Amino acid sequence: MWTYTPPLREMQFVIEDVLDAPAAWAEMPAFAEVDASTARAVLEEAGRFASGVLAPINAGGDLQGCTWRDGEVSTPPGYREAYATFVAGGWPALPCDPQDGGQGLPALLDAALNEMLAAANHGWTMYPGLLHGAYDCLRTHGSEPLKQRYLAKIASGEWLATMNLTEPQAGSDLGRLRTKAEPQADGSVRLSGSKIFISGGEHDLTPNIVHLVLARLPDAPPGTRGISLFLAPKFLPDGSRNTIRCDGIEKKMGIKGSATCAMSFEGATGWLIGEPNRGLAAMFVMMNSARLHVGLQGLGHLDAARQNALAYAAERIQGRDRPIDTHPAVRRTLWTLRALAEGERVIAYWCAALIDEAHHHPDDNRRRAAEGRVGLLTPLIKALLTDSGHRGSDEALQVWGGYGYVHEYGIEQTVRDSRIAMIYEGTNEIQAIDLVLRKVLGDGGAQFDALLALLQADAATMPAGDFSTAILVQVALARSATRELIDGHAADPQWPLRVADDYLRGFGFLLLAWAWGRIARAAACDATDPWRAERLQAARFGIEWLLPEADWRWQRVRKRHAALPALRA
Amino acid sequence: MWTYTPPLREMQFVIEDVLDAPAAWAEMPAFAEVDASTARAVLEEAGRFASGVLAPINAGGDLQGCTWRDGEVSTPPGYREAYATFVAGGWPALPCDPQDGGQGLPALLDAALNEMLAAANHGWTMYPGLLHGAYDCLRTHGSEPLKQRYLAKIASGEWLATMNLTEPQAGSDLGRLRTKAEPQADGSVRLSGSKIFISGGEHDLTPNIVHLVLARLPDAPPGTRGISLFLAPKFLPDGSRNTIRCDGIEKKMGIKGSATCAMSFEGATGWLIGEPNRGLAAMFVMMNSARLHVGLQGLGHLDAARQNALAYAAERIQGRDRPIDTHPAVRRTLWTLRALAEGERVIAYWCAALIDEAHHHPDDNRRRAAEGRVGLLTPLIKALLTDSGHRGSDEALQVWGGYGYVHEYGIEQTVRDSRIAMIYEGTNEIQAIDLVLRKVLGDGGAQFDALLALLQADAATMPAGDFSTAILVQVALARSATRELIDGHAADPQWPLRVADDYLRGFGFLLLAWAWGRIARAAACDATDPWRAERLQAARFGIEWLLPEADWRWQRVRKRHAALPALRA
Repeated sequence: MWTYTPPLREMQFVIEDVLDAPAAWAEMPAFAEVDASTARAVLEEAGRFASGVLAPINAGGDLQGCTWRDGEVSTPPGYREAYATFVAGGWPALPCDPQDGGQGLPALLDAALNEMLAAANHGWTMYPGLLHGAYDCLRTHGSEPLKQRYLAKIASGEWLATMNLTEPQAGSDLGRLRTKAEPQADGSVRLSGSKIFISGGEHDLTPNIVHLVLARLPDAPPGTRGISLFLAPKFLPDGSRNTIRCDGIEKKMGIKGSATCAMSFEGATGWLIGEPNRGLAAMFVMMNSARLHVGLQGLGHLDAARQNALAYAAERIQGRDRPIDTHPAVRRTLWTLRALAEGERVIAYWCAALIDEAHHHPDDNRRRAAEGRVGLLTPLIKALLTDSGHRGSDEALQVWGGYGYVHEYGIEQTVRDSRIAMIYEGTNEIQAIDLVLRKVLGDGGAQFDALLALLQADAATMPAGDFSTAILVQVALARSATRELIDGHAADPQWPLRVADDYLRGFGFLLLAWAWGRIARAAACDATDPWRAERLQAARFGIEWLLPEADWRWQRVRKRHAALPALRA
Repeated sequence: MWTYTPPLREMQFVIEDVLDAPAAWAEMPAFAEVDASTARAVLEEAGRFASGVLAPINAGGDLQGCTWRDGEVSTPPGYREAYATFVAGGWPALPCDPQDGGQGLPALLDAALNEMLAAANHGWTMYPGLLHGAYDCLRTHGSEPLKQRYLAKIASGEWLATMNLTEPQAGSDLGRLRTKAEPQADGSVRLSGSKIFISGGEHDLTPNIVHLVLARLPDAPPGTRGISLFLAPKFLPDGSRNTIRCDGIEKKMGIKGSATCAMSFEGATGWLIGEPNRGLAAMFVMMNSARLHVGLQGLGHLDAARQNALAYAAERIQGRDRPIDTHPAVRRTLWTLRALAEGERVIAYWCAALIDEAHHHPDDNRRRAAEGRVGLLTPLIKALLTDSGHRGSDEALQVWGGYGYVHEYGIEQTVRDSRIAMIYEGTNEIQAIDLVLRKVLGDGGAQFDALLALLQADAATMPAGDFSTAILVQVALARSATRELIDGHAADPQWPLRVADDYLRGFGFLLLAWAWGRIARAAACDATDPWRAERLQAARFGIEWLLPEADWRWQRVRKRHAALPALRA
């Protein structure tokens, strides 16, 4: 009963009308071949894969899950075939460099692809989820021999990749990790230690698996400055099995089709990537785009929940022979889901477009400015979109009543699957702290001020007075709260930490207000088109019904509560 | 790793210090034998059962679930033994009339018992969950022969009971139900039809199951005025099997130890309870206490999540060798959970005490006044406490980071189990509409005004100025918003429906503010006691950090948005 219809028209509207991305591509030599019609064709094909191949095996993957036996992992029925189709279609290589066998398409199109993959089947999507991170990391920091051996295999998806960070005592705090790397005479290392929560650490989708592993070299300084990054494949170049073992898989709340592995490295052969003790820096290459992609998973879930709730509400009859979408409470939920999904898509795609600009724009200043904006937007997008992916689908579940609690209707799986995205790639609490401490207070608010100025200028170009006014009000709220924090946090260093969550939400509402304004401006081009009129309506709903929450959030940021005491039992 | 420690001191504090319930019992002849020390002893014993018998089989019940085979249902390991212990301890009969074999104890103590049962094992708790409803219903409306045959068996829990309402086409809208009852010459009826979502419709815990069934007599008027209530046992008085069959059980998001059955009645023998076509009225006898108990499930989950998060946060070390409960974001979550759980317990227990007063107070006027208050508080408690049971445990999950997503840590089960309580016994959207349309607007706000006057008077007796001021501000907000709705809804009948959810939350904050004030007053009696000082601190946290959300909720109630248009695809 659960279906997924790729929101192609919505995506096209954002890419072409709201963000005017084809014009930006035209300015970047790397994308000289890409135009609006290429983009449409790519997304249409991607949507066919998501809805036709991935969505049908989503519920089964949840019911069946993965199976672990003697160190080997079997994925759910259909996963292998779907992965083979994915590789054959060239999807892993979408944004990779053509010289590595990639298609060299914009990150913006890869963002839209990832939204659809996660919406259709989050569990399956976990397997290729780290490919681009590993690709970027290896391409930027790997030695020539390593690149020769692994880069094209990863770009094509022929071999999948993993990221081995977490250890039982070292989760959010990577400085505590203990896995050891002992250098060998031949330039390799022997890796020894245990890792947990390794997505796709073992599986049956590809003939080899390329593990990226954080570990400590002998005499490395303690903490995060003593961590190095290594590559260790499941099968060594001579075809022998490396001493890397999957000790078991976790029984989880959701994404049950994804094998979350406990791994042990028992003197496994690996090679250093980048400089000794600079492993976190090498890994952070992948962080912005990985966090954006996690945010897109949230958006995918929200949109899938939205469209299924809408369809169910139009069919389910209760009371006076009318479908339940005539009930004001149901209708309000449906408009909320739509306003959020459409606003968030604009923010996330804008960030993806800025990543393209940061990498490919010919103008240095433009590249640098875009990079700064990406840094500021990334934690916001990760936390805002994953919160609303989970909470929004949880709210949508109410539309089904008792059926919502039953597996076969699909929404309860969405609620469970979407929950992980609030945790991994840095919990949303860590995103909020990254935003406030590093990205805003870190440069005295300079980057943040520049963004506010941009949004403010944009507001002036918007039509209907209520949108531009709303954005200006939000800019003023954000500016004064930020100014107070900048001036006051020296005297009370825990203040930003106590209110980081509210700060992130306040900032999120500012960007949503701007996104709704952009949607309204783009939709107003043709007010007679009912599809565009409905976009305008959703944007207006967001401003009227959802935005007032921002006042309360900023109020909590500004109120200087005393430090919170410890709790006893 | 998941444990449950009954919050006995917190319960005792609310019962004795905050609500002064023993003084109220002394005014009611039915409770002449009950005093504070009886209550303490009963709850201590109940807590031992919950933590010692139910909590240990909670995770296993979730993993294993129920098994259906050829119409028979097996419950998870340990469920039968736990149920036998429950019956042997006399727990089912706690609030039942001594003349039916009950213990005649206050509903307030039964409320505390139910909070603990759900906190320890929600899935198991579903089986005896309908006993009291069935008992009240049969006692009030049943014929003498039916009472003779079934009442004592139900009171003692020797036979379990079910409530067969929902049909595939009739969920929230019971008027659509189709099950037929054909009268027979001997005064019985033959029941034919299909029911779904029947909790405990079939199981292996008791030798017989007593089904209460809503169905239509021939020539009954359409809609809800043509529904009658019947009793149909699994085994007939002559020992033969009735033609009632369990066709299967649902695969659900949570409460997997509870068998949610699809039932078919194939000419099953039953007997009318109460008047023909007055089945809903007969069933509504059980509604207030059933909804209060569902609210208590939410409270149980919230408190279990709170205490486990607190314990985990005190042990888990991340960053500078300090436990994570020193992090402001974690600490803020822990204080939020505590403030909500403690405030909500006061509201729910107050409602239970009012139920006792409504049933047993010698003064007619007091009984009537209490009954009116119970009617007003019930939808609020059901929706507020179940929302916060689920959302609060979902928020608590973040404290565990990645471990929170893994089954063995327990919190993800709490998130899943708690979700159902927002749906059953009337979805929370239906509670909000019941509150606004029937309970508030239904009598022109008279009952509501009386409650506001009571809370206002109580505020005057509270110590620290910030509590009484906060309550008075909330009273004023609630009063003016209600007045506007009363005056304005004739012109825009959908207005209350659009904002019912916000109204309920605004009203919830008013009651929380009052509850925190009562806690502060009771805790202030001995300011040198660190335990009491921490209660006061939690109450103050609630007023400072949580209450400001109320402004935004009332603002949404008062803003007369235009009607929401239909959504297209």
